[in-house]
Formats: sequence, C-alpha cells, structure tokens
Amino acid sequence: MKALVGAVLIGQSGGPTSVINASALGCIETAMASANVTKVYGAAHGIKGVLNDEIYDLTQEDPAELSLMRYTPSSVLGSCRYKLADFMVDDTDYKRILDIFKKYDIRYFFYIGGNDSMDTSSKISSYLSQHDYECRVIGIPKTIDNDLAATDHCPGYGSAAKYIATTFMEVSRDAKVYDRGSITVIEVMGRNAGWLTAASALAGIRYKDHGPDLVYLPEVPFDMSNFLSDVSRVYEEQGDVLVAVSEGIKDKNGTYIVSYFSDQTKEKDAFGHAKMGGLAANLAEYANAKLKAKVRGIELSLLQRCAAHLASATDVEEAYLAGKAAFEAAESGITDKMITFEREPGEIYKCKTGLVDLVEVANAEKKVPREWINDAGNGVLQPFIDYALPLINGEVDRPTENGLPRFARLKRVKAGSAE
Amino acid sequence: MKALVGAVLIGQSGGPTSVINASALGCIETAMASANVTKVYGAAHGIKGVLNDEIYDLTQEDPAELSLMRYTPSSVLGSCRYKLADFMVDDTDYKRILDIFKKYDIRYFFYIGGNDSMDTSSKISSYLSQHDYECRVIGIPKTIDNDLAATDHCPGYGSAAKYIATTFMEVSRDAKVYDRGSITVIEVMGRNAGWLTAASALAGIRYKDHGPDLVYLPEVPFDMSNFLSDVSRVYEEQGDVLVAVSEGIKDKNGTYIVSYFSDQTKEKDAFGHAKMGGLAANLAEYANAKLKAKVRGIELSLLQRCAAHLASATDVEEAYLAGKAAFEAAESGITDKMITFEREPGEIYKCKTGLVDLVEVANAEKKVPREWINDAGNGVLQPFIDYALPLINGEVDRPTENGLPRFARLKRVKAGSAE
Repeated sequence: MKALVGAVLIGQSGGPTSVINASALGCIETAMASANVTKVYGAAHGIKGVLNDEIYDLTQEDPAELSLMRYTPSSVLGSCRYKLADFMVDDTDYKRILDIFKKYDIRYFFYIGGNDSMDTSSKISSYLSQHDYECRVIGIPKTIDNDLAATDHCPGYGSAAKYIATTFMEVSRDAKVYDRGSITVIEVMGRNAGWLTAASALAGIRYKDHGPDLVYLPEVPFDMSNFLSDVSRVYEEQGDVLVAVSEGIKDKNGTYIVSYFSDQTKEKDAFGHAKMGGLAANLAEYANAKLKAKVRGIELSLLQRCAAHLASATDVEEAYLAGKAAFEAAESGITDKMITFEREPGEIYKCKTGLVDLVEVANAEKKVPREWINDAGNGVLQPFIDYALPLINGEVDRPTENGLPRFARLKRVKAGSAE
Repeated sequence: MKALVGAVLIGQSGGPTSVINASALGCIETAMASANVTKVYGAAHGIKGVLNDEIYDLTQEDPAELSLMRYTPSSVLGSCRYKLADFMVDDTDYKRILDIFKKYDIRYFFYIGGNDSMDTSSKISSYLSQHDYECRVIGIPKTIDNDLAATDHCPGYGSAAKYIATTFMEVSRDAKVYDRGSITVIEVMGRNAGWLTAASALAGIRYKDHGPDLVYLPEVPFDMSNFLSDVSRVYEEQGDVLVAVSEGIKDKNGTYIVSYFSDQTKEKDAFGHAKMGGLAANLAEYANAKLKAKVRGIELSLLQRCAAHLASATDVEEAYLAGKAAFEAAESGITDKMITFEREPGEIYKCKTGLVDLVEVANAEKKVPREWINDAGNGVLQPFIDYALPLINGEVDRPTENGLPRFARLKRVKAGSAE
C-alpha cells in the first residue's frame, strides 16, 4: 500500500473522563514520530472546532507539557455534544468539514468519544469517501459509562469505577461511625447502563460492610415498594444501610424514578437524553419515612468522571495504547474503524487492541448482562466482580506540585496563525 | 514526680476525618511501649462506650493491623455526638464514668475530637479530680473545620483541604470543557468557619482558571443581589463561572441562605446545630435565572471528610504526632490540656506541638480572619494561601490491594471478655 502523507487531526467529544487526554497523547506522540505526518492538529471542542475553523497546531506545543496530558482529566482540546445531520438530508456541515480538511490537508482524522462520536466519525468517513477525498478515519473509544458495543470495556471506565469503589469504601466507614442508625443513598452516573453503579460493589470484595448493601441498576425495573422493603430488611438486620443507585433507574413502564420527585426530566440535552439529578436525597427520605434513621443522599456528580488523582494505572495505560493503536492502524491503511479491547482468556488479566466497524458501534449500547445481576435485582454477582476488578488496578504516579496535581497547560496556537 | 501506673483509655468523638485514626494510633503505639501502662483500651463510640461499658482491649489486636489505622478514615472505634450535662446539675453520667474508670483502672484518658469533645474532656477531668480519682486527661485536636482556638491548625483540616482543592481543580477542567457557558456551584462543609471553603482557592494558585472564580465564606454576610451581580459579571467576562460556597453562609440578619430555599434548618442535631444541605443547586439555579447557562450544583458532602486516599502526608504525620505527644505529656504528669500546633517563623514550614488548657478550647471557635478575605467578600487573599498551602503538602504512600484501599479491620475484643 502506498503511504498516505498529510496532516493529522484529533478531536475529543462527549463527556469528560480521567483518561481521554491519555488517548489523545498516545495518538499525538505516535503521529509526531511518523515520517508520513506533516502536521498534528487538534480541533477545539471536537467537530465544532472543525466547523468553526478553530484548529490548534499541536506541533507548537512543548513536548514535556504535552506529556502531562497523561494525567490531566477532561478534554484539553475542549469537547462538544454536537449531532451532525444525515448528509442525505442536509450536507451543510459536511461541505464545511471537507473544506477545512482540504485547507489543512487532513489525511488522518481521529475522534475520541462514545457512541454518538462514533456515529459522527462514521458519517464524516462516508461523506469524505463519497467525495473522493482520501482520509483515514479511526474512532478511539472513551466513556465512563462503558456502554460501547464490540469492545470488552472502554477507556475511562476503569478510573471512574476505581473512584466509585474507593469512595464507597470511604463513605461506608463514615456512614457507619455512629451508633445511631443511618440510611445513606449514593447516586452514580449511568442513564441506561449500570456499569458505573455496579462498580460500587467492588468496595465490598474484602469486607462486605465496606461496600453497598443494595445496588440498583437501570437494567432492572425499579419498584418503590421492593426498595422500601429491601431497605427496611437490611436496616432491621444491621442498623444501617448503604445504597448505590443509578441516576437512570426506571419503573416497569420506563418512567424515570427521579421524575416521581420532580419534573426535571422534561429538560433534554442536544441528543434527546433526559437530564438527571436529585434522586439520592429523595430516595433516602422516602426509605426513612417509617425508620427515623439518620438520612443522607449523596450525588457523586462530576467528581466521578474527572477524578484523575485516583485514575486506574491500567486504564491510563490502555487509554494511551488505544490512541497509539489508532494512529498505527490508520497509517497501515485502515479506515472507518474504532479501536476495541479484547480480553485474552486465562486467570491473569491481559488485553490487546482490536478493530470494529464504526457503524457497528454508532448508537448501539451495551448493558450489564442480566445474569450478572442477582434475581432480586438489588445486587451484582461474581462474574461482574471478575470482569471489573482488573480494570481498576494500579495506582498512577502522577506529577504533583505543592501537594496539588500538575495538569497540562497547552499554548493552543491557532493553526491559521502559524501559517 | 511519681510515675502513674495504670490503664490507658482512648475515645474518638465528633465527625470523621481522614486522620483521626492516625492520632489514635500515635497515642496507642506510644502508650503500648510505656512501662507505666498496664492496658490500652478503646471506647466504642466515644464517651457513650464508657457509659455503656463497651470497651475494647486494644492489646489483643494484631499490631500490623493496628498500623493500618494511619491510612484508614473515620473513627475505627466508632464516634458519637453526646453532650454531657453540667455535673452540678446532673451527675448521673459522671458517676457512671467514674465507676467504669475504676473498674478498668483507667489512669490516662485521651479524647480525640473538636471543641465539643474538649468540653466533654474538661468536665470529666474536673469531676474525676473533685472525686480524688487520679487520672490524666489530654485532648487530641481533630476537626476538618479547623475551628479550634489556641492552635495554628487542626489535624484533619489539611487532608480535607487537599481533597477540596484537588476536586476544584478537576471539576474546573470538567466544567469548562464545553464552549457553551456554564455556572457551577460547589458547596463545601463549614457551618460557622470558612476554612474549608477557603481551601478551594488553593486550586487556583498556579493557574487562576483551575480554581473558583468566587468564594463565599460564612465569615462575611451573604447578599443575594451581590451574588447575582458577581456571577453575572464573571460570566460576562469569561463565559463560565465556578463558585465555592460554604454550607453555612448567612445573610446580615444571621439567617442561613439555605433556608431561603427550604425549611430544613428546622431540624437540629444533638448539639443544637442546624442541619444543612441542598444549597449549591438552588444557588446555581438562582444565579442562572437570566443567564440561560448550563447549570450544576455539587455538594461535596461526606466525601470531603473521609477521602483518606487523598490525605495530606503532612496532616497524617502531624495527626500521629499529636497522639504521641498526648501520651508523652500525660506520662510526664500533665493533665487537663489539649495538644496544639505551633508554627515556627520562617519561610520553610515547620510545626511543633504545644499545650493549652482544655477549658480554653471548649466551645470556642476560630474563624478565618476578616483581613484574609477580600473587601468584596467573594475571595480569599495571599495570607490565607500562605497559611494553608503547607498543610496540604505531600502524598501518602497508603497500602492498596486490588486497586482499592486496605483499611484497618480491628477484632474489637470486649475488655470484659478478656478478663
């Protein structure tokens, strides 16, 4: 195959994770070392940066500062939640993208994100190819939600899971410190898939009382009266209850439980996803109606997706590897694929990267298998623990300064200004 | 002075911190090494364990497991919020305490806690001395609130401050990742003293935009219209706003701001302190009424006081030292005092322990000096940064297992069952 010479463009999209910058770094450093690469650009705020011609020239950055991206949470290039139209219906954005790609001679495009981002990548790839513009497009998976199809797991999940499990262990010590009974409900992210909420169960693997007593995932219809009897039973048995609940739990009719307490599900984001919040405190109060315990609702909120100080070393390394593998695949002639992780069989955890068609990932959603959840729908089983535990392993040796993290600070030189 | 030979009793009281067990460990290990000590006991749930004769024999514990207390958050012995009556009014509890002390030959009593606990210690000390029972009583300071009088700072504060500053840095990266404007309000603990909320400003010491734009402490009366104009001004200037707000902010009439949004201040704890919560989301919504930004309220909740995974190494060492100094002081004949920290002058941070009368600390409260807060009352000044920065310094080398913390697990052998 003839080598494709040209510029590289990297974009970051969707919700932040602790390791999305590690993936970008893996791709950037590998690309910069290649003789086929003329320039390495970053798009400001994902595809919106392409549409707005806000492109950073990453070759102008100090390599030492760039390397700090490995331990810097959230997207250093900026992110977006922008949905491209179908180009058969409206090709305005696509024409603009093609123009910008031509302007900077972009021949390699890498988009780091979740299923919506893979949808975007797939559409751009199709459009460019239909207009005979040679550009290799590779998606790099990223989501704390761990809900992408065709991959064992997603970079970002391991670090969020580690933060959640550690936080449950710590809060369990706090919530049980008084001799007066307590009911603590902790709300975890995850609209439709319960991977993050399930990770709370990792807290109890050594000592049961370090973890949640009850775990409710969106995969199982939530029933208020079952919840009440679950909490009452545990409270009766041990005098305190620690509950993990997904923000996205729904009843058997598909109605979000949070909407029982408010009308905030009416507000939706650009992708039509309902916005969430306020569930934990309300459920805790509800459970306590007859128990008269000390009650607390805690929402982990943004902390669970940006706590890079507690990133999983395994996750950071795999995220970097995904970015590196993406460039290597593209350079070898592959396009229109997303990097995946394939777990090798055996006792000792080992993963290698693979490839899957973008369209296969776009808009699909992988949920926690029902057989990994107990019959009562209030806890997870050993196969989930065996799956998730290796992903949170290892502590990062992150740079600090004055006892605080030292994050990457890019100069963000506009590509235009450098020409 | 004649050596006092007898048993040691240690109790933990009040809200958890990341390092209260490090203080207990410093006292336990030093006491166990002394020839004057016949036994080392721990009271279950502080003074309530004495009243209920729930006393653990700590000499039955595995020393290696005990040593894990250095990195285990919350109180391994259990805590309480129990207020002793004035013994001139009602001496029931005191008679019981004296009986229990006689039963176990307690000659050294150490109570780890905040100002309420120093009040308890002082009362017990007076009662025992009036009844000619020789027992040395030393208080060991502990509070994330950092509000104890007569000490430079309190063990527990540095770790909570480090968690808060780190979390603000991480959330700032997350909150500013989209190009759409955002208003993020983070609620920090601290009813009357703003030390914890002020610690958020440490996040911005290297890069201003890594920290909060506005910081509101309970030391300055909070004004809703000033808040609104502060947020609007910052939003206008930079398109996003990150706000740190103390749970305890009050208006000029002393009314809690949280009560503007609910009636939850009616519920009070055993010490008559109003219960708090729900402020951040309401303030964020309020500020956004005219701005139409993306809004988020985050409550750090229990996480800020039990996040031992991010403890300050300085704080852990000082907490241990406070426990050690407490036993050494008692053994040398001192009683009725609390351990303090005295900062030595000079550029390089150095602290030594000191002593202060328990009564001087009991029920007093140290606030952030007004001159460390800016004139507008929406930010802190360099003297606070210089004060707080050394306290968060250093990373702990905490033991982990499978990527999770390894906390101390005591056998808790009842003292009675060992006799």
